[in-house]
Amino acid sequence: MNFGQHSQEEYFRMAESFHGRVAPGLIIGGIMITMAQERVPKDSLYDVICETSYCLPDAAQLLTPCTIGNGWLRVVDLGRFALTLYDKQSGDGIRVFLDKGKIDKYDEIKNWFLKLKPKKEQDSNQLLEQILDAGREIYSINKVRVQPQLLSKRSKGSIAICAACGEAYPAKHGATCLACQGQSPYLTAGKNP
Amino acid sequence: MNFGQHSQEEYFRMAESFHGRVAPGLIIGGIMITMAQERVPKDSLYDVICETSYCLPDAAQLLTPCTIGNGWLRVVDLGRFALTLYDKQSGDGIRVFLDKGKIDKYDEIKNWFLKLKPKKEQDSNQLLEQILDAGREIYSINKVRVQPQLLSKRSKGSIAICAACGEAYPAKHGATCLACQGQSPYLTAGKNP
Repeated sequence: MNFGQHSQEEYFRMAESFHGRVAPGLIIGGIMITMAQERVPKDSLYDVICETSYCLPDAAQLLTPCTIGNGWLRVVDLGRFALTLYDKQSGDGIRVFLDKGKIDKYDEIKNWFLKLKPKKEQDSNQLLEQILDAGREIYSINKVRVQPQLLSKRSKGSIAICAACGEAYPAKHGATCLACQGQSPYLTAGKNP
Repeated sequence: MNFGQHSQEEYFRMAESFHGRVAPGLIIGGIMITMAQERVPKDSLYDVICETSYCLPDAAQLLTPCTIGNGWLRVVDLGRFALTLYDKQSGDGIRVFLDKGKIDKYDEIKNWFLKLKPKKEQDSNQLLEQILDAGREIYSINKVRVQPQLLSKRSKGSIAICAACGEAYPAKHGATCLACQGQSPYLTAGKNP
């Protein structure tokens, strides 16, 4: 099986290096990306939506030009094991998802996907084998159109200096930066970092 | 200048391949990651917070084991050009930020960072030169402690099947999945994909 333009061996090596291990979700994500890529019009410039932050974003970042930092990959965290490649302009997209209606004969995939067993009791070797054996048959595909507000290029707008912490931030956030409005991820005594 | 364990040439090649181009934010992010890495205790297992989705997450994904998909990198989108490496257990972290108080003598960095000029009028070659010339002198460092609720391992909890769309989703989201509760990124006529 190929993953994007890579052989299985290459992709597994890339997954291990980038993600830390060849996780089931990386293999599944790699197959989903490949299935979507085969269906988007040739030469279309596409962006990616992943509907979960688990694993799928890394498959997208390995197999497409889209990353979190370049803005072409968006995580819309619905907790569904699904991803969409869509045309940047029109929003027309191909959505691929792991279909729970198609996994009945793969017990380890079912245990993993629906969390029917604690992770420790799952057989990870058999899980990988079943994912590879199943190939493309456990996924389904929707044609979708992405909401227009998600198509516009992200923009910070103009930059202000926060009166509280002294750092630069997007002026549209208000009179101070969001951290100084209480959204800081840090515990702090004095000045808000 | 080194970027993590890579030479500048190597890192630039990695940035171009992963991010699409050697963007100013990737170079700045690479320097920030490197400065933080030098200050976290040796052998500590750290996670990363990026305070913006622009560029910095890609520097983190290239230079650390932390990615969006493996859960060790979190984007807390405050719109500040800052990142933190913090101990997974204790939450003690090193936060590095581009310090607007230190960029006065670098006009192109100032134009870019504070958006004083439209992008078209900025001189991108000079910007890159100034970033490399400035080296580490335009950043500041805070010691921080990350909020305890950000330290716990992310968990989906148990999985339910959505009564509306039929897909698997985290049961904690409610009686139907978040897409079917109105958070779908897609325009749809019938069944909610």
